[in-house]
Amino acid sequence: MNIKSRILRSALENEGLVKIAGAHDGLSAKLAEKHGFDAIWASGLGISTVQTVPDASILTMTDFLNSAIIMNESCNLPVIADCDSGYGNIHNVTRLVKKYESAGIAGVCIEDKVYPKLNSFDDRQQLLVSIEEFCAKIRVAKLAQQTKEFVVIARVEALIAKLGQEEAYNRAKAYANVGADAILIHSKEKTPDEIIEFINNWDIQTPLVVVPTKYPSITMEQLEDLGVKASIYANQALRATYRAIEDVFESIMKNKTTIQIENEIASVEDIFDIQGVPEMKQLEEKAYCKLLDS
Amino acid sequence: MNIKSRILRSALENEGLVKIAGAHDGLSAKLAEKHGFDAIWASGLGISTVQTVPDASILTMTDFLNSAIIMNESCNLPVIADCDSGYGNIHNVTRLVKKYESAGIAGVCIEDKVYPKLNSFDDRQQLLVSIEEFCAKIRVAKLAQQTKEFVVIARVEALIAKLGQEEAYNRAKAYANVGADAILIHSKEKTPDEIIEFINNWDIQTPLVVVPTKYPSITMEQLEDLGVKASIYANQALRATYRAIEDVFESIMKNKTTIQIENEIASVEDIFDIQGVPEMKQLEEKAYCKLLDS
Amino acid sequence: MNIKSRILRSALENEGLVKIAGAHDGLSAKLAEKHGFDAIWASGLGISTVQTVPDASILTMTDFLNSAIIMNESCNLPVIADCDSGYGNIHNVTRLVKKYESAGIAGVCIEDKVYPKLNSFDDRQQLLVSIEEFCAKIRVAKLAQQTKEFVVIARVEALIAKLGQEEAYNRAKAYANVGADAILIHSKEKTPDEIIEFINNWDIQTPLVVVPTKYPSITMEQLEDLGVKASIYANQALRATYRAIEDVFESIMKNKTTIQIENEIASVEDIFDIQGVPEMKQLEEKAYCKLLDS
Amino acid sequence: MNIKSRILRSALENEGLVKIAGAHDGLSAKLAEKHGFDAIWASGLGISTVQTVPDASILTMTDFLNSAIIMNESCNLPVIADCDSGYGNIHNVTRLVKKYESAGIAGVCIEDKVYPKLNSFDDRQQLLVSIEEFCAKIRVAKLAQQTKEFVVIARVEALIAKLGQEEAYNRAKAYANVGADAILIHSKEKTPDEIIEFINNWDIQTPLVVVPTKYPSITMEQLEDLGVKASIYANQALRATYRAIEDVFESIMKNKTTIQIENEIASVEDIFDIQGVPEMKQLEEKAYCKLLDS
Repeated sequence: MNIKSRILRSALENEGLVKIAGAHDGLSAKLAEKHGFDAIWASGLGISTVQTVPDASILTMTDFLNSAIIMNESCNLPVIADCDSGYGNIHNVTRLVKKYESAGIAGVCIEDKVYPKLNSFDDRQQLLVSIEEFCAKIRVAKLAQQTKEFVVIARVEALIAKLGQEEAYNRAKAYANVGADAILIHSKEKTPDEIIEFINNWDIQTPLVVVPTKYPSITMEQLEDLGVKASIYANQALRATYRAIEDVFESIMKNKTTIQIENEIASVEDIFDIQGVPEMKQLEEKAYCKLLDS
Repeated sequence: MNIKSRILRSALENEGLVKIAGAHDGLSAKLAEKHGFDAIWASGLGISTVQTVPDASILTMTDFLNSAIIMNESCNLPVIADCDSGYGNIHNVTRLVKKYESAGIAGVCIEDKVYPKLNSFDDRQQLLVSIEEFCAKIRVAKLAQQTKEFVVIARVEALIAKLGQEEAYNRAKAYANVGADAILIHSKEKTPDEIIEFINNWDIQTPLVVVPTKYPSITMEQLEDLGVKASIYANQALRATYRAIEDVFESIMKNKTTIQIENEIASVEDIFDIQGVPEMKQLEEKAYCKLLDS
Repeated sequence: MNIKSRILRSALENEGLVKIAGAHDGLSAKLAEKHGFDAIWASGLGISTVQTVPDASILTMTDFLNSAIIMNESCNLPVIADCDSGYGNIHNVTRLVKKYESAGIAGVCIEDKVYPKLNSFDDRQQLLVSIEEFCAKIRVAKLAQQTKEFVVIARVEALIAKLGQEEAYNRAKAYANVGADAILIHSKEKTPDEIIEFINNWDIQTPLVVVPTKYPSITMEQLEDLGVKASIYANQALRATYRAIEDVFESIMKNKTTIQIENEIASVEDIFDIQGVPEMKQLEEKAYCKLLDS
Repeated sequence: MNIKSRILRSALENEGLVKIAGAHDGLSAKLAEKHGFDAIWASGLGISTVQTVPDASILTMTDFLNSAIIMNESCNLPVIADCDSGYGNIHNVTRLVKKYESAGIAGVCIEDKVYPKLNSFDDRQQLLVSIEEFCAKIRVAKLAQQTKEFVVIARVEALIAKLGQEEAYNRAKAYANVGADAILIHSKEKTPDEIIEFINNWDIQTPLVVVPTKYPSITMEQLEDLGVKASIYANQALRATYRAIEDVFESIMKNKTTIQIENEIASVEDIFDIQGVPEMKQLEEKAYCKLLDS
């Protein structure tokens, strides 16, 4: 049994919007937990960015998995791994499910784009595999999982590829029919109209997941009212990080000292706390004091 | 020949304070380059923090090396790897020098604490190895390097361990005598008095490196006037990152949408740029257009 | 629940000698399963050898873990990871238990030598930590495990260090008392007398494990009659591999062709079978044929 | 400058057949050096086999690179990495060249099959990318390399895919024209007729490399007389390893002891020697004795 998969599955089955934070390392994952999110999105964009490579299948499954494992160890939340287009064909999908599940990751999301993929917000042409090919991928993903709780999410990129609502609906339905545990429907329109239309047309039980990066005006309440099951805030922590580092480096180079920023940034004690130094000290007590008693 | 080692060595030999930014991943390293720093400090504290474990030899040499490689690939600056106490004995030091140098890292820094180590700002007791033992480590490090440019920095923790100026001086001198390319003298006093005393007593050619985390009032000009060769701003980017992620997660959970923060954080385009998407598009031109011409 | 830990624990609790094969990669692990062994010993000596470094804590926990994961994925047998002296102090032991258990490894074995360690058959001086220190390590290992099935084996090196039967007994007893699930008692005498004396003196329920590398005359029947619970054939596959590669390279260089050895070595079809190519083909049927039916 | 690339390039430019041993780990690489081979082929088949997965792009570039690095560290020979079809598109090829070259690997070989690939001896249909696409890959590989010595080998799979001599020639010529440093022409016919025909038709300066796995009757002298520049003995060490492990495990399970095989397998001392224990002891002398003298 995979405990975190069970937690994730329960969240998807219960009432209420599941709030998912995009993370790019252990620190961002642990801070998401601290602030009340329900799950972690191990973001392909985020993991690529902290390694400064394009989100275009440049990093390997091994690289992404290692990052997801770090996030998973860093917090008690279930982690959903963004597995892009599955890193190849059905055999690569089988491999990834075995690797991620055995590493304790709660679930994976694969999308119906070709491999190598492009980031969905990239302005170059977005290519999708056939429905048949992607259904085969979902099928083998479900065959590969060892525990019934493990979650496989199918991501539909038809709206991203400008193929229209009907294509998006047909794909989503086919993926749901072959066993996808949820459908992530993605859009890069600046208003939520497109995504709302899709949601309103959705007449199947399989839960819907959205990523309101490009249409940020939509609120959690609106999403919940629409019947959306989960919302991923995929890259805001990353983008805030970028800005914060820019600011601090600019300040140091300009002021030739760090005295000005000391109070604006976290303290070394904050760092020790998030690292788990207090728990480390407690363990020292347990490990050696017990001996004296025994 | 290791090109980045040569750059680092030149910087240490030339006029002017070498400004070194502590980084914890590729993004922070690349932003340090953008803002004009001269080199990267692959911080053990930083790498540990983004994996949410104490800076106490919990991560392995393999983990730290992988992070240093990512930083090194992310920018054109030379990377100095914080290699803690050398991950064990002289054989582990030999191993680390071979691994880091062959991976293209410009230099390493090892400190005279026991393994496993504690972070220097940790309030638990700080234990040092004998001068003889640490001299043996420096000796094997210098024997192990394959190129003459590779830089080995010896970090003296005597002031951190409250052993006094004399012990600090004797250690630093011994390490310089057996071949250390620079001495990093560390202090956690809240004023720079202690470090200034050490610097003023230093009568040996081997250059000095400082880390003014706990005495941030000192300026680059002051350090340069004192004759310090390099200053490491070791963890400010990390601490700014922590605060920024806290703020953005707090805002999302409070406002139930991200519309409020869109303008305060970096754009998706900023992210694409730092990832190298423009260079990726240029390469596509080159790869296929040439064909048409040939 | 960790299924493989449960299998290993059952084997240790049931009748009969548990036959454990030392492996150094996935291939040797899978061949051990094919030949009827009950479990895999992820040998530190073996993993070090295929990377051509001394078995002296040169590879890191990360390196050893990666190899153990490969073995674990390669077969259905439970894997016991040889974790040397625990890679440092109690915090490193805590870390290793978390990492190995969450990766699905059935159990770990740690020994009461200092870090960095030497291979037990190395003729240099063998140093042990105090009983108190090693009991603390066993204690934290048991505290760190998340499932009750996970197995922690304490390896006693007192006979290897020539400290005598009494010291060996006292150490083994102390480790059993603080929770070790089994005691591995190691010897490098050329006859089994020393190990038999230890076994005959053992008056505690905790099961015993032996490694008859240096006293190979002892048989499985004898071990079972003595009440030993498990026997590890730790490095024979490795040593056979070494010899076989020597022979084949010698033949190629001498004969200037491989025609002479074609029938003495495995076929490419054997290789495909052990890789799982037949299962791969079957999956292709399932992935795409089902579609036609649905 | 990459020293091992220079050695490899010299070998390809000088007189005489370059004898290359396929290796699958550090041990097999180091034994190849001991027996006089000139270079190492970091075999995709071999690396996949010791992880018991099909040679079908199941392992990632990261996995293959890690294995190649281990081989490279284990011996003084240059390593040519079998990089399959380049792990994706031109961007993945760019990435792999940067990663392998900066890790000190002497050269890479990429083949003109689709990604994910099948092993060339697999009986399923072998698919090739267009000449244009593969020329783009060779072009970006040559653009990506940082040192002029780094070697990029183009592997032609037209004969494997049963596309005939003309297609094989045209492809090989096109790849040579866009900068490939050598052409690996592969065949799985049971006689060398096909490969000899190709070689005799080859009228371009770019050197040829062959892999006589399926046509083992051909000798090094014959290859040299034909003008072939290098011959790869790609998987014999692997296949010998498989057989040797089978034999030793069968013996242990049958005889219930290892006494019968002790003299047929390498000794523990052989293992220590190949690990480098003697060099380790020498280093201890140097590290501490010098101190006494200074």
